[in-house]
Amino acid sequence: MATYTPPLRDMQFVMHELLNVTDELKMLPRHADIDADTLNAVLEEGGKFAAEVLAPLNLSGDMEGCTLDKATHEVRTPLGFKDAYAQYVQGGWPALSGDPAYGGQGLPLVVNQCFYEMMNSANQAWTMYPGLSHGAYECLHAHGTEAQKATYLPKLTSGEWTGTMCLTEPHCGTDLGMLRTKAEPVAGAPEGTYKLTGQKIFISAGEHDLAANIIHLVLARLPDAPVGSKGISLFVVPKFLVNADGSVGERNPIFCSALEHKMGIHGNATCQMMLDGATGTLVGQPHKGLAAMFVMMNAARLGVGNQSLGLTEMAYQKAVVYAKDRIQMRSLSGPKSPEKAADPIIVHPDVRKMLLTARAYAEGGRALAIYTALLIDKELSTDDEDERKEAADLVALLTPIIKAFFTDNGWLATSHCLQVFGGHGYIREWGMEQLVRDARINMIYEGTNTIQSLDLLGRKVLGDNGAKLKKFGRLVQTFVEDEGTNEDMQEFINPLADLGDKITKLTTELGMKAFQNPDEVGGAAVDYLRVAGHLVFAYFWARMAKIALEKKDSGDPFYTAKLHTARFYFAKLLPETAGLIRTARSGVAPLLAMDEALF
Amino acid sequence: MATYTPPLRDMQFVMHELLNVTDELKMLPRHADIDADTLNAVLEEGGKFAAEVLAPLNLSGDMEGCTLDKATHEVRTPLGFKDAYAQYVQGGWPALSGDPAYGGQGLPLVVNQCFYEMMNSANQAWTMYPGLSHGAYECLHAHGTEAQKATYLPKLTSGEWTGTMCLTEPHCGTDLGMLRTKAEPVAGAPEGTYKLTGQKIFISAGEHDLAANIIHLVLARLPDAPVGSKGISLFVVPKFLVNADGSVGERNPIFCSALEHKMGIHGNATCQMMLDGATGTLVGQPHKGLAAMFVMMNAARLGVGNQSLGLTEMAYQKAVVYAKDRIQMRSLSGPKSPEKAADPIIVHPDVRKMLLTARAYAEGGRALAIYTALLIDKELSTDDEDERKEAADLVALLTPIIKAFFTDNGWLATSHCLQVFGGHGYIREWGMEQLVRDARINMIYEGTNTIQSLDLLGRKVLGDNGAKLKKFGRLVQTFVEDEGTNEDMQEFINPLADLGDKITKLTTELGMKAFQNPDEVGGAAVDYLRVAGHLVFAYFWARMAKIALEKKDSGDPFYTAKLHTARFYFAKLLPETAGLIRTARSGVAPLLAMDEALF
Repeated sequence: MATYTPPLRDMQFVMHELLNVTDELKMLPRHADIDADTLNAVLEEGGKFAAEVLAPLNLSGDMEGCTLDKATHEVRTPLGFKDAYAQYVQGGWPALSGDPAYGGQGLPLVVNQCFYEMMNSANQAWTMYPGLSHGAYECLHAHGTEAQKATYLPKLTSGEWTGTMCLTEPHCGTDLGMLRTKAEPVAGAPEGTYKLTGQKIFISAGEHDLAANIIHLVLARLPDAPVGSKGISLFVVPKFLVNADGSVGERNPIFCSALEHKMGIHGNATCQMMLDGATGTLVGQPHKGLAAMFVMMNAARLGVGNQSLGLTEMAYQKAVVYAKDRIQMRSLSGPKSPEKAADPIIVHPDVRKMLLTARAYAEGGRALAIYTALLIDKELSTDDEDERKEAADLVALLTPIIKAFFTDNGWLATSHCLQVFGGHGYIREWGMEQLVRDARINMIYEGTNTIQSLDLLGRKVLGDNGAKLKKFGRLVQTFVEDEGTNEDMQEFINPLADLGDKITKLTTELGMKAFQNPDEVGGAAVDYLRVAGHLVFAYFWARMAKIALEKKDSGDPFYTAKLHTARFYFAKLLPETAGLIRTARSGVAPLLAMDEALF
Repeated sequence: MATYTPPLRDMQFVMHELLNVTDELKMLPRHADIDADTLNAVLEEGGKFAAEVLAPLNLSGDMEGCTLDKATHEVRTPLGFKDAYAQYVQGGWPALSGDPAYGGQGLPLVVNQCFYEMMNSANQAWTMYPGLSHGAYECLHAHGTEAQKATYLPKLTSGEWTGTMCLTEPHCGTDLGMLRTKAEPVAGAPEGTYKLTGQKIFISAGEHDLAANIIHLVLARLPDAPVGSKGISLFVVPKFLVNADGSVGERNPIFCSALEHKMGIHGNATCQMMLDGATGTLVGQPHKGLAAMFVMMNAARLGVGNQSLGLTEMAYQKAVVYAKDRIQMRSLSGPKSPEKAADPIIVHPDVRKMLLTARAYAEGGRALAIYTALLIDKELSTDDEDERKEAADLVALLTPIIKAFFTDNGWLATSHCLQVFGGHGYIREWGMEQLVRDARINMIYEGTNTIQSLDLLGRKVLGDNGAKLKKFGRLVQTFVEDEGTNEDMQEFINPLADLGDKITKLTTELGMKAFQNPDEVGGAAVDYLRVAGHLVFAYFWARMAKIALEKKDSGDPFYTAKLHTARFYFAKLLPETAGLIRTARSGVAPLLAMDEALF
């Protein structure tokens, strides 16, 4: 059974050779004294935690799942999860990128990104418990009152308490404007205090035995709320009320009433939650809850992309071990291991294609994810408003791509890596089919991938007449011009430049069509997002290839492998865009022409 | 929860309007007195059995799974499976296409194809029990001695007994040449009797409580066997030895030692089988077992394609019901159901794209599958040697396409239909995630899809210099020429003709490359198969569109829907070939260049 090897070398390559993160971070007041050794050392330790503590619990957590005691409404997580969480808190990991004002270590998000990738590789279901806390932390940090911050942020930072986001109701997920949970003012209570009543579903980490308190961020309607999405407010509703001294007080009536039976992520408790007059306090302005929640949602979307990045890496590692070990058939070009009864299956071209697909998506994704984390570090910390705006715009553009492109790729890659195992891939004990099942949810939650594509094409690209897209386009353009005379780079630069031109034309064409008929956006968005994802990946793969070419005489096989993987990406993955551009251009009529009754 | 509606109208369309099966079948001596009403009536009853008996057991069967009593080696199937099987036998269904010489009804395989599609839609795991029997029946029918036929075929035909195929061992699946199970002659026993010893894994329906006996067809080595695949013989090994009077005798030591824990098809018992000196008799010639087994294997490959066809149809039906019922968000072009709080999600273009993908793959697949069944009916029954050869060649060409293209499409389609349900698709009770899990095995067993692609490109296409491909090409060419002046058909004919030209050039190019380096076949085969699959689907979709155009003034909405689905196929699915042809042409070097150690 394969174990997990943290991809530290590749993370260091991206951080220090591709992105020069320490130089970039030092320009930011908050990270002026950062150094590469610190980043590397933290990630080395973080990798150990992922590999040694979390990875061994992944398969057993899937098999055992969570159990609800219906009498007490308490949930028991799989064996070992609680102890792993205690080690996580003990190690100070929850505080990694937290605000020092609340006990955080103040490290850049670049570090947190890499740490979470490794935890997701090792155990997505477990990692969702602290992952949800991050969202709650960020939302309260951005929109909470001073009292709310003082009450909750130190405990979320230390990991003593965890958080959730309670959005979905049985009749509405995508369309939160329809939600019905009510929040009513409490006579005599302090201003901003409400009693919440309603039902939520699909609440990840909604109840568990890892922490002393669970801080729920809940969307609900005030009595005077307008209908629709402009009548939604955000509340913080703790599992246990918090006493004035900060200690855990009486049980608040927000209960887990059932656990969902899911395809995967069995180790995470996906809860139906009943709010039965639970006490909560308002976060941010009345009726402005959706906007406040989107702070959390954007971070969560990047987090979901990171989950699939982690699964892609893990699937790759497991499949490589198997493909080198398993012997079956001879190479079509003659025996490669004549001393054995058959050749290891890694000699077969299509086995390599499946492996390299996962590898190229993992390494390309890692580069983009760390790049985006660095942009967020800039957005959060720079004093330069132009730089902040530039970073924020790029993050806004890249967020739906990271969410949808990574998770679609994760589904492809985990399925390919399962296939490398043949029939054994379908058997639970090998752990491959779990990666596929876990990966499937990532295409759905925090906004389905269709919603991401509408966000990208409709809002982020066409919504500002392509201004954000042009910002990314300028990076591509600059790189293409810089390398235009570099003979060795032509194999990468030419297809990159070509795709850049095509996406520019495609965007203009879709904008014109959408002006005539808004449904055209819905007809093309999913294809468009995938083309945009490839543009971004092609850019990073070309940049990585440039470094690998420069270092190819170094004798370090890392660069040889990087160059081969870049060539694979351009030869075997990027050409998908040829079909996608055609389908994006073929319009919405073939989708809408058929009367609903004929389906 | 959606129920299953047998697609009888579409089956009738394919049989009677597209393929004229009754006229074709009447030309065959064995089916001279067939008539359309009989075919339709049988399928109507078969559809009832699938919808009313099998479909209600699908989800419960998945949840319960099979259990092994380790003391007795007996397997209990999920609640209701045994009773359903009794009804199946009672109804005479196992005999449908069986040879009348052994109690069969002698109906054409066209009927059996449609019946199995419906059973697969309703319950793939259950349908594998009788499905495996078919393979054993066909293998013994083709290669068994008179005594073996007399002993086994009547009971397999009646369904009193079921069958299996025991090929895989822990160390070999694809590469059966390495198998180790031994068969030793028994001193004093009748000639052709052996004792078999060894271990088999992944034996579907290997043990169960549905039937009084289980007839295993087992690959093993004789003592004097040459090494490799030329030293494999085939044996029939019953669970219970059969007495001279045909009654069930003593227990033969071929035992289920464990059940596999699988991603899906939980209702089917996937067994590890121990042969501990089990008595078997030789089927066919010594050391020629693989050839004999391939009779079974080819039928099984078509059967696996049919499983995914069934799942695709079922996923489509369930997702359509949900998409019409679930309201969420407004159409981008304005409210379509202003009286409701939101529009049904079927108004959203991408939801329609996901639904239509499943529909186009199901209906295209149904046309090809019934066409292929008719070819097999001809191959088995015609007196005309030229017609037999033509049919056999086309079946050989189409078999890997049906196996791999249908099952890849089934994976895509079931996943898309799950996505239509949003988060609910991930929850077990809705039944969608089961369809995805069940569909995943179909890409693996009976030869992985990579093996199918090597069979297609290496053996079926390049192996005879494109002769079989040209036979299909002539059908396309004739249709293109016949419709070349039909203005209404240009939207279908032009892309079909274009793809035909491209695949001809691609084939020639790959043949030249493979001549230089056999690994080029392995580098291009998977992409090539998908392109070939689209050529075949485009041909059938164009033919179906022609009929729909002719009938478009009939007032029957069936033809309107068919035409819209054809247009969708050409606009949104076929263009995938643009990318696939590029990757197929980009060669094997990007796959093989990287040293194994660098993975």
